[in-house]
Amino acid sequence: MDKILVFGHKNPDTDTICSAIVMEEIQNKMGLNVEAVRLGEINKETEYVLNYFNVKVPRLIEKVDEGQEVMLVDHNEFNQSVDGIENAKITMVIDHHKINNFSTKEPLMYYAEPIGCTATAIYKLCIVNNEEISKKMAELMLSAIISDTLLFKSPTTTPWDKKAAEELAKIAEIDIESFGLEMLKAGTNLDEYSEEQLINIDAKKFEKNGVNYIIAQVNTVSIEDVLKRQQEIEKAINKCIEENKLDLFIFTITDILNCNSEIIALGNRIDIVEKEYKLENNRAYLEGVVSRKKQLAPMIEKNI
Amino acid sequence: MDKILVFGHKNPDTDTICSAIVMEEIQNKMGLNVEAVRLGEINKETEYVLNYFNVKVPRLIEKVDEGQEVMLVDHNEFNQSVDGIENAKITMVIDHHKINNFSTKEPLMYYAEPIGCTATAIYKLCIVNNEEISKKMAELMLSAIISDTLLFKSPTTTPWDKKAAEELAKIAEIDIESFGLEMLKAGTNLDEYSEEQLINIDAKKFEKNGVNYIIAQVNTVSIEDVLKRQQEIEKAINKCIEENKLDLFIFTITDILNCNSEIIALGNRIDIVEKEYKLENNRAYLEGVVSRKKQLAPMIEKNI
Repeated sequence: MDKILVFGHKNPDTDTICSAIVMEEIQNKMGLNVEAVRLGEINKETEYVLNYFNVKVPRLIEKVDEGQEVMLVDHNEFNQSVDGIENAKITMVIDHHKINNFSTKEPLMYYAEPIGCTATAIYKLCIVNNEEISKKMAELMLSAIISDTLLFKSPTTTPWDKKAAEELAKIAEIDIESFGLEMLKAGTNLDEYSEEQLINIDAKKFEKNGVNYIIAQVNTVSIEDVLKRQQEIEKAINKCIEENKLDLFIFTITDILNCNSEIIALGNRIDIVEKEYKLENNRAYLEGVVSRKKQLAPMIEKNI
Repeated sequence: MDKILVFGHKNPDTDTICSAIVMEEIQNKMGLNVEAVRLGEINKETEYVLNYFNVKVPRLIEKVDEGQEVMLVDHNEFNQSVDGIENAKITMVIDHHKINNFSTKEPLMYYAEPIGCTATAIYKLCIVNNEEISKKMAELMLSAIISDTLLFKSPTTTPWDKKAAEELAKIAEIDIESFGLEMLKAGTNLDEYSEEQLINIDAKKFEKNGVNYIIAQVNTVSIEDVLKRQQEIEKAINKCIEENKLDLFIFTITDILNCNSEIIALGNRIDIVEKEYKLENNRAYLEGVVSRKKQLAPMIEKNI
């Protein structure tokens, strides 16, 4: 039987990696031959999770062959996906993002909800299909939910995310608050990253009306600490803008304890940002903003 | 609260109409203000179902205003949907077709599976959300499944369609076989239709690589009976080709008792059909073919 690959988006986060691994287990139990893979380096938070639960890091892939059967988790936009996705055979998508120009040649399983986390959608599918949730699955899905909802503080959080997390915590025998805080803090350890790596940990590429832009995000417990490196970060951003012919790069530094963000915005279209926020020294403070998907990205998109 | 509209595709069939009515009931129970509407005349089979269960025919609409909140069932392609769909706000899609260039501005609920019927997908959602299935819902969902699967004889039928139908039949207190056969036969009463209506009862428009084509389908218990009107049908098809600047029109006459079809193909691109089937007198007999989605449409598409 040909191997099916399951993976999340480029610049993988904890939801992308954990949801792929969980889907591998579910699908293989159903008799398929599925391998979870990743499209980039895992971040510190994900590293903490996989170490903590003693789970192997998925194999890195850079492209897929024509006709390769794939399942997508945590994304659907081809420009956030693997190289060659246009000619792959997509048989399943499980996601929680808006849909952008998505097409397939045949009917497929597509399940997306406007909820906080892909793993919550997988949890719901397990219920409907009477799928037993193993301890390992529960550990990984719970980690994904904590990560994407910032311990339920993100405005993307829904009652389903909380309900799923509570049920999964019972199976995983884990205290959500204490484990969650340790996990999120592990992701804020940014010291080992070069500035070039920093702006790529969680960078998502968008395009609207010919404007090409990236919104990147890092989590921290001290915005001030990250801003000490502003000059070097700006150098890395400007290099990225030049290399990728971008019109705008927004680097978002999110304080996960107090739930605010500071952005650094560069590019020839910073006017888009300035329709909402006055930039000083290329920076703006965004009180109460923690979610790219629900807060920052829609604001940028409506001004393009 | 603004009214949300829920509807299926143009040239509505039983699944499209019944799934919309069922979604209206589910969503209104959840506190929303939803109205099931339709995008065209109902067919004889659907008329039989709504009469049998004493359910009102949904209101006809022709377009939606900009920003109108809508939920789609049984389709996702904009060219099969209501006029103005491009500027509506789609918050939900429940479907069982391939996805074609679908985009939204925000995350939404999207649930599709490669199963026989939209109502089966709704049934699965009822399970996961602990939604109580009323007798009326069960009657309509069962009718939709019988219709789309041709009483489980269509190759689109999956174990989930059968399971859902059996459970729904218990709630509806209906004998699937006897009711199903009567219902399907009611849909084969084509005498009252003009030829122009006949080719539009269940016509779906497609486009690939600049080729615009329609595949229409009618159900019958006697292909021969329908073919008595071939000359008049061809006139109606040629008129439709001219008016809609089509390259190809395939009219499919399906014998629901013996599960075969005869097609009439016209247009300047009948060469696409002839890559698979030799046409004689513009016709070809397709043994064992009953499903447009799973059998006929993919065959046409791969030859374009």
